[in-house]
Amino acid sequence: MKPSARKSRITIPGFGFAGISADIKDSGEKDLALIYSDVPAVTAALFTTNRIKAAPVKLAISRLSRQKHCRAVIINSGNANACTGKQGIKAARRMITETAKELNIIPGLVQASSTGIIGRQLPVKKIEKAIPDLVRNLSPRSLANAASAIMTTDTFPKISQKKLSIGNKTGTIAGIAKGSGMICPNMATMLCYICTDIAVTHKALDSALRKAAALSFNRLVVDNDMSTNDTVMVLSNGSLGNTPLTARSSHYRKFEIALGDVMYDLSRMIALDGEGATKLVEVIVRGARTESDAERVGKMISNSMLVKTAIYGKDPNWGRIIAAIGSSGVNVREEKIDIYLNRIKLASRGVGTGRESAAANILSNKSVAITVDLNSGNRSANVLTCDLTEEYIKINAHYST
Amino acid sequence: MKPSARKSRITIPGFGFAGISADIKDSGEKDLALIYSDVPAVTAALFTTNRIKAAPVKLAISRLSRQKHCRAVIINSGNANACTGKQGIKAARRMITETAKELNIIPGLVQASSTGIIGRQLPVKKIEKAIPDLVRNLSPRSLANAASAIMTTDTFPKISQKKLSIGNKTGTIAGIAKGSGMICPNMATMLCYICTDIAVTHKALDSALRKAAALSFNRLVVDNDMSTNDTVMVLSNGSLGNTPLTARSSHYRKFEIALGDVMYDLSRMIALDGEGATKLVEVIVRGARTESDAERVGKMISNSMLVKTAIYGKDPNWGRIIAAIGSSGVNVREEKIDIYLNRIKLASRGVGTGRESAAANILSNKSVAITVDLNSGNRSANVLTCDLTEEYIKINAHYST
Repeated sequence: MKPSARKSRITIPGFGFAGISADIKDSGEKDLALIYSDVPAVTAALFTTNRIKAAPVKLAISRLSRQKHCRAVIINSGNANACTGKQGIKAARRMITETAKELNIIPGLVQASSTGIIGRQLPVKKIEKAIPDLVRNLSPRSLANAASAIMTTDTFPKISQKKLSIGNKTGTIAGIAKGSGMICPNMATMLCYICTDIAVTHKALDSALRKAAALSFNRLVVDNDMSTNDTVMVLSNGSLGNTPLTARSSHYRKFEIALGDVMYDLSRMIALDGEGATKLVEVIVRGARTESDAERVGKMISNSMLVKTAIYGKDPNWGRIIAAIGSSGVNVREEKIDIYLNRIKLASRGVGTGRESAAANILSNKSVAITVDLNSGNRSANVLTCDLTEEYIKINAHYST
Repeated sequence: MKPSARKSRITIPGFGFAGISADIKDSGEKDLALIYSDVPAVTAALFTTNRIKAAPVKLAISRLSRQKHCRAVIINSGNANACTGKQGIKAARRMITETAKELNIIPGLVQASSTGIIGRQLPVKKIEKAIPDLVRNLSPRSLANAASAIMTTDTFPKISQKKLSIGNKTGTIAGIAKGSGMICPNMATMLCYICTDIAVTHKALDSALRKAAALSFNRLVVDNDMSTNDTVMVLSNGSLGNTPLTARSSHYRKFEIALGDVMYDLSRMIALDGEGATKLVEVIVRGARTESDAERVGKMISNSMLVKTAIYGKDPNWGRIIAAIGSSGVNVREEKIDIYLNRIKLASRGVGTGRESAAANILSNKSVAITVDLNSGNRSANVLTCDLTEEYIKINAHYST
């Protein structure tokens, strides 16, 4: 799942990318990214539901409610520009106007995002100073640089791509994301930018985005914290030349599925790269009365620190799983619950099967599935998470200092 | 706060206690406790709200709904007797009948509790075999032995006592508790037994218990898991000889406060002894529109893994605190929020004050207070929690194996 040479060659017609160091991070690593479209791209976006929102998120929500197009997105890592008061809003505006000036486009077509530590003023002068260099670095082949520049504690850049035929043409949907900590529905602490050359109307793009996010990023749990900066943006610049897709177009459903695939793929990478995580855990809840019941049970399991530490310890402790199921608030029946680790049945109708030692071996894998059958209906939901390790504590005990 | 010699001498007139090893724990440590009252004691109790309940909890809920008196409580640690099906119910009944037989009282006056690993059948034969020895060990001065025998991953026994004058007599309220992991409202993974010689009617005792629990155990967060076994029981045997207190008695309010103090004291010990914890954290939320808003914000902060790891890392990262506040669902206003660590103001009206280095020193203390002023009303609530450390992961990654 780590970025391959193949991924670093991904291009999306009509888009350019850049990622450089603006000296925001002490480490000297890349911390400033730019996404640029040759023409105004139809843009749909989703943001954190946290009441405390970072300055660029406040701006983007307000500006995207009026302007449905975008030509450039500038993103910095290393500083969240959150809880920075009026000075923070000014700094975010400054990022936008300076980028617009350098690109010679109107500021209304530029969006900004930030990620990193909360509560420190953005070093906007460093960003301003780096913008000319950032723009000079724009290239259709630099998606991987942009993916690296938005990373915080991520250990690898996250890139996913899907090609699909629209009539007799082949369109591309490709995206980058960053995750790692503060990953809790709804919306992880994550930034995600998806670009496509396929023309889609704003209404259809917005609808496809919401549907895909509900099944991917909103079913992703790393820890139980929700960020102030979460942003998912999809830009469609229509370079493919197709008639813009609407919800009624024959190719729309295919587009929706492909967008969902890209977002689910990025979600899996975020779970796998959860801070300190050693394992990707897919929690599959079936036999629920409603999908929302299934999702609640799945999220409760994914949020359980005891389940997550047991998985890390290669301990198939299904007692912790059933305790989490019971505390979800869903009206479950203990005597109906089956629990599996991959294909091994750990509990049958609420009672242990004694197959722990067989199951323990599975927990050496890099990726495991916990399946819960509530045997009370025919609805299901998948939730993505990871294990919880000492490394998570180490990373987070010393992040800001 | 560790048990002193003073605490080990606590007695409550008319009550006897015992704590021995029945060989349930591999370690050979004490794992079987008995609380005994010379006469039937008025008994009020609260249990886990988890849908999945351990066998003894199911039994106790059903039996205490018919029988408001109790003379003995037998408690084992090392095995939760949860998710053990019909065999588990039989085992719990067996614990009760064997205890009743040995004490020569009716089984209806005996209650049982269990704590430990979920999903393994209770080694009830070991318990049966140990009961005669357990009863022989009964002594008014053995409260500390009982407190030790109910421990799982606790590092010290938890005992609290309060004396109060009822007319011209001095009554006692004393309790023991165990906590450590799976501590999440409502009701921690905890067992708590409180004995008093003060006579109280069942209705008044039940009401005082609910009120005290709402302000103590239900505002206590160690991790985000809710146990299948949580139990709080209060036994009032009336040995003091006072007229049973009702909600209208002149001394009732004093009793209620003293019971609340004992339960809050035990809650603090549970937080301090949270698995792997190095610090007790008291989260005080004030300036809320309603007490329930204040409690929600306090619990959100107390549940935040990022806040808890930052405190462990002596990092006064108030950005994580404000992010947790914003995700509580309470309609807070960023520009009104003040955040303090002890008396040091870290954020004023939502913006940092730059006093992190002064605050970092405070985090070397064994006990710290986070105060949040929402400046939106005059309601407040306190929530108790602890920091999150590598040790928590180590303890829980290898608990059942």
